[in-house]
Amino acid sequence: MNTSLSVECLFSRQAARVGASEIRELLKLIGSGDIISFAGGVPEPSLFPYDRINLACDRVLGDPEVRAKACQYTTTEGFPPLREWIAAYLSSRGAVLTADNVLITNGAQQAIDLVARLFIDEGDRVAVAKPTYLGALQAFDAYRPDYLAIKTDDQGMLPGELEAAMKMRPKLIYVVPDFQNPDGITYSSDRRQFLVKLADEYGVPILEDSAYDQLRYEGDMLSPLIALGSQAHGSIEEGCYIHAGTFSKTVAPGFRIGWVVAPKPVIQQLVCFKQATDLHSSTINQILMYHVVSEGFTQHLDRCRALYRGRRDAMLEALAENMPPGVTWSRPLGGLFVWLALPEPLNARDLFNQSISKHIAFVPGDAFFTDRSVRNTCRLSFSAISTEQIQEGVRRLATAVKELISR
Amino acid sequence: MNTSLSVECLFSRQAARVGASEIRELLKLIGSGDIISFAGGVPEPSLFPYDRINLACDRVLGDPEVRAKACQYTTTEGFPPLREWIAAYLSSRGAVLTADNVLITNGAQQAIDLVARLFIDEGDRVAVAKPTYLGALQAFDAYRPDYLAIKTDDQGMLPGELEAAMKMRPKLIYVVPDFQNPDGITYSSDRRQFLVKLADEYGVPILEDSAYDQLRYEGDMLSPLIALGSQAHGSIEEGCYIHAGTFSKTVAPGFRIGWVVAPKPVIQQLVCFKQATDLHSSTINQILMYHVVSEGFTQHLDRCRALYRGRRDAMLEALAENMPPGVTWSRPLGGLFVWLALPEPLNARDLFNQSISKHIAFVPGDAFFTDRSVRNTCRLSFSAISTEQIQEGVRRLATAVKELISR
Repeated sequence: MNTSLSVECLFSRQAARVGASEIRELLKLIGSGDIISFAGGVPEPSLFPYDRINLACDRVLGDPEVRAKACQYTTTEGFPPLREWIAAYLSSRGAVLTADNVLITNGAQQAIDLVARLFIDEGDRVAVAKPTYLGALQAFDAYRPDYLAIKTDDQGMLPGELEAAMKMRPKLIYVVPDFQNPDGITYSSDRRQFLVKLADEYGVPILEDSAYDQLRYEGDMLSPLIALGSQAHGSIEEGCYIHAGTFSKTVAPGFRIGWVVAPKPVIQQLVCFKQATDLHSSTINQILMYHVVSEGFTQHLDRCRALYRGRRDAMLEALAENMPPGVTWSRPLGGLFVWLALPEPLNARDLFNQSISKHIAFVPGDAFFTDRSVRNTCRLSFSAISTEQIQEGVRRLATAVKELISR
Repeated sequence: MNTSLSVECLFSRQAARVGASEIRELLKLIGSGDIISFAGGVPEPSLFPYDRINLACDRVLGDPEVRAKACQYTTTEGFPPLREWIAAYLSSRGAVLTADNVLITNGAQQAIDLVARLFIDEGDRVAVAKPTYLGALQAFDAYRPDYLAIKTDDQGMLPGELEAAMKMRPKLIYVVPDFQNPDGITYSSDRRQFLVKLADEYGVPILEDSAYDQLRYEGDMLSPLIALGSQAHGSIEEGCYIHAGTFSKTVAPGFRIGWVVAPKPVIQQLVCFKQATDLHSSTINQILMYHVVSEGFTQHLDRCRALYRGRRDAMLEALAENMPPGVTWSRPLGGLFVWLALPEPLNARDLFNQSISKHIAFVPGDAFFTDRSVRNTCRLSFSAISTEQIQEGVRRLATAVKELISR
């Protein structure tokens, strides 16, 4: 075995399907110089609750018993008070569950991976929105499914298309009901009810990804699918509603603490997988996170929402001021992204190249489609740059669009 | 879908192979009351370097730039200075590599899982020692291999059996060269050289698990396989030697920081898998770990070795004093475990039941064999209990053995 090529011959079939995320590769650009980046979906670091984190560290490391526990191995399921906190939070949102239904994961990404592991064999069908979160597609890809990509409007998946997909008996349907990454759409109450009803009728497990749902900038929060589903049955144990969440967008992603909520038989098997994968999530980070969120979390969220709302508004205004006719964009009620559509036949990859020369980065939208068929969309994140940068960045981006049109 | 049973019908084929670890289930016993537990392989919490951890927290959280970075997303590959530190450490042990060959993982467990994902398709062969680390078997099981279980003596895998296994062209050979979990054996220099030579000859990737190698209580450290392999070729890029390590046994497991070292094409694909799995390991924990190990680590290791050596000696003495004739045990040069063999036809599961009534726990050895064929062995950990508890525990265990013999 003398060349790297021969090593690659030994790789599993998974390796053929799972490549590097373009977003992660693009993220590497952010570090380089004075680029204004609309790429990535990273939270604003000045919002991280450093005072609470400091206080939590002092409490944990200052107590001989707690610090010994925090630095040691723990059970795969996770730190019980944090599981209780998550169960209580979801109960307050209307879900019918207990802490036994909660498994702590390394962010929502690991929740998605573990659920994919549990349901998907090669050739199984997975239903997703068109477009959908790239990281979920990457997680699913490892298990080599066939995709059913369901068209959406600004209320969520189209009912006719959804029912047609359900009739194909997917093993899993993956949904981001609030401010979906990448296109920012939010599912209406009716569409949520319809989703839950259909999943039940056809016996298809729903994986709900709630990464952004607490970052709502206007209107009332809607019930998560886990609430609608568990209420309909009186318990989370009937039906198969699975819910993934994370503290990455609301507290800080560097701790890698998320969760998955599911009926107990599902949690039990996910625990086995997580054991085999990495034993458990960081003990100390789970305990710190519990301390951080258990006091003053609502006020912290209000601060986050106020800042992001301002940036969203700045981006929407700048787009309205600068973009030439024919360019359209979403008006998200929350989350971190605006979704831009170029007039056909413009290609977002060409715009990307044009923009980079103006020190502007964003994510071309084709990566979010299972078949990469849509070429004219762009994901713009407004979360981690100042309103001044947003204004300047959108101006330059609009110039790049105009140049592309005039070519 | 009205019962949990029907949900289970939807589970993937992986779910059928991956069950809960008996060790993890047994670990739950530790919490309960006054059991003296020789189960688990957890480090002694009084050895965790709290002063260094505190100092590291102060540095990281006290610096506005560093804390913003520590709480944010990072690249999948990991914190560059920590990757450099690991590369420098392995260079000092004789390996020929750079930081580009290092990927930070959630403990060595995730390194094993990612490598298994990379090489194993259903029905592929994986060669392991007989017995071997249960957690590795659990990680491998998810990918549904067939096992080639290779007999060992106190020098490592038997050369004839090893060569016969290599001729079966396994996709991977998994080796714990130092103080192997569960039986504590250490591979001799000759056996290491032979392993590396054979792997090269037959084109079989080696996964070396070095979880315990720094915890040596007597004699000189031997070269890791990654050093022998990369020296033979002048570079890690030739051949396929993969090395997994962790700070779980030497610093603290609660941070979940380990690593995998491999040729670049292997690392690149492992990075893609890790991205899909959980994006990256905790940023703050990587930075903290770097600060903890970059000063005074050698002295810290000396402290760990001194304490564990004393406990190992106490256990060996207590066994010699108390065990009836016919019982044999290993004399490990390092690590956390003594491996006990009962006279046939005694069964370790029976002893387990007998011992629990005396408030003594250990791990019956059959779980460490791919075919569970060996029934008379027990893994005894001496790492996290005082010498007094070791003496008392071994006394009670010996009583249980005698009762079992006399039945």
